[in-house]
Amino acid sequence: MIEIIFKATNLEELEMKTAKPIKIIASGKYLPKIVYSSQIEDLHNLERGWSAKNSGVESRHHVTFECNGYMGARAVENAFEKSNLQLKDVDLLISASATFDYPLPNQASVIKSELVNGNEFDFGTIDIDASCLSFVSAFEVASALLDGKQYKTIVIVSSEISSKGLNPANKETITLFGDGAVAFILQYDESADARFYKAMQKNYTEGIFDSLVKGGGNKYYFKDNPYTADLYSFTMNGKNLMRLALQKLAPFIDAFFEDLAIKILDVDSVIPHQASLKAVLILEKTYNFKPNQVKGNLKTHGNCIASSIPMLLHDSIENGEIKRGDICFLVGTAAGFSIGGALIRY
Amino acid sequence: MIEIIFKATNLEELEMKTAKPIKIIASGKYLPKIVYSSQIEDLHNLERGWSAKNSGVESRHHVTFECNGYMGARAVENAFEKSNLQLKDVDLLISASATFDYPLPNQASVIKSELVNGNEFDFGTIDIDASCLSFVSAFEVASALLDGKQYKTIVIVSSEISSKGLNPANKETITLFGDGAVAFILQYDESADARFYKAMQKNYTEGIFDSLVKGGGNKYYFKDNPYTADLYSFTMNGKNLMRLALQKLAPFIDAFFEDLAIKILDVDSVIPHQASLKAVLILEKTYNFKPNQVKGNLKTHGNCIASSIPMLLHDSIENGEIKRGDICFLVGTAAGFSIGGALIRY
Repeated sequence: MIEIIFKATNLEELEMKTAKPIKIIASGKYLPKIVYSSQIEDLHNLERGWSAKNSGVESRHHVTFECNGYMGARAVENAFEKSNLQLKDVDLLISASATFDYPLPNQASVIKSELVNGNEFDFGTIDIDASCLSFVSAFEVASALLDGKQYKTIVIVSSEISSKGLNPANKETITLFGDGAVAFILQYDESADARFYKAMQKNYTEGIFDSLVKGGGNKYYFKDNPYTADLYSFTMNGKNLMRLALQKLAPFIDAFFEDLAIKILDVDSVIPHQASLKAVLILEKTYNFKPNQVKGNLKTHGNCIASSIPMLLHDSIENGEIKRGDICFLVGTAAGFSIGGALIRY
Repeated sequence: MIEIIFKATNLEELEMKTAKPIKIIASGKYLPKIVYSSQIEDLHNLERGWSAKNSGVESRHHVTFECNGYMGARAVENAFEKSNLQLKDVDLLISASATFDYPLPNQASVIKSELVNGNEFDFGTIDIDASCLSFVSAFEVASALLDGKQYKTIVIVSSEISSKGLNPANKETITLFGDGAVAFILQYDESADARFYKAMQKNYTEGIFDSLVKGGGNKYYFKDNPYTADLYSFTMNGKNLMRLALQKLAPFIDAFFEDLAIKILDVDSVIPHQASLKAVLILEKTYNFKPNQVKGNLKTHGNCIASSIPMLLHDSIENGEIKRGDICFLVGTAAGFSIGGALIRY
């Protein structure tokens, strides 16, 4: 176990740079109905195996009756079942997602209202949206707020529904995206070995509209723009996104680890956003990773927007691939175009 | 000037509880076209003076060509014009709003892309949505992140367009709401007298849908729910909101000041959200405030959602009513139903 991973020249600097004792107490998950690629392929007249080959996805989950609030609440309850904590211990609920049930109120308030007995508590509810990096940003914000005094316990929930915003005419996206929710309970715990070390996000405006849902905000307002799949569905300029990722990812990771005594190859687990088959390969091919050092669940979950990273973290903890003490690097790209990362010790 | 405002029994506790040297460097504003109440009254067959009497609004601003990104970018540029800083100094841009241009990407990325030369920089871009309290939450988050190292300078922008989501059949809302943007540049500055002391938010689920935009998210999805003013406009259950505010506001403020050596009547300026005429009066009537201690701009701006509080703070600074060293209490209600507050020294 690496005790202090920041470069430092004196004790004071070490103290300042050594990040906070933030512990993941438990995590929980909710998945809607499984949808196999063969079902999508049959429905959209794609050749069998097209999805696995081109999108890297064999199955994913899509909502039937569920909304973001419902799934998020079930994920939170699932996390609490695995902890010794209760809702009364929560100081703040952060919804870290790109999709939502209502334009107003914010999603965290809706998730709280969907919790069994959620109405008995008055903890705060805020949303953080950094599109696919929302969980990474929320983890950083929660770690900054947690102080063991005003904020002892913060819950982060990523609950995403991508399936409603997919254009049937676009085979790349209809095979790629999945839905689902995941929740993490974080605590400030000085007695824990767990740490939040650092997070970083950079935005590269040249890719601002390479991932886009055009209709549904004030730019293309509902009233003046009736629904068409083209206008209201997710579109991506795959070529530009790949070019940007290829160009920016390695310099971003260099900058991230610049002031650290460890490098990306030293971390126990890399948890990348499951943006697409090609995006995942860019990361894996840039470094000479050890087998199983980079986790992935694209094949069974697809791209679940901001839920992808926490779901992969959750699954890797559940299946024993990530153990207490492991250094984990969460990293990904996001619409906007952004790259972000966070380094933690589980 | 009150030097230390936390109750404390020893030096260590004082140090821990005395909040961070966060300084408002500058702020900027953008307002779209002014709309007088007489214009709205004539258009909707309301008697002249109805708005001033019932909503407390004589004029507000509504967008013509502008979007959230455009207004937000102009407000940011206006703030930088008044500072010695440049965009290259920015470490993070937070969009703190309830309304947005696109469902994806997030609004902060859009604002950055609308900035003149915004594409030359790669600072991070995240959104924080706590509906009308978004700026208060963003101020708290920025203060937690700012450390003078990784985060020296953070810009918070609240840019709101309410006018598109108003139902012509609802005279209470069409006369009440306004649009506009405001931006604040915050820095960690140990040499400054400025302070961030504390923020708090509580959510009361019993009011979850008392402020609501029903259509436009995953619950009432565009595809299955064509536009109607009823479904896609802001609705409020004024009676419930008033009841909740009356019941929860004073206990919230008591809890906020519980561990402080000062009380609400001791602060130099109270900056309340301009939710409505009745909401503003509830606060003013609960305490025996000094004249001009509670600021307001409902009459000339209406309720500008999350822009209301920072716009009032900005205007009060600009017109000299808030001076360096003044203790300011930002406070308000929000959809969800939440109450929040932040205590700072300007």
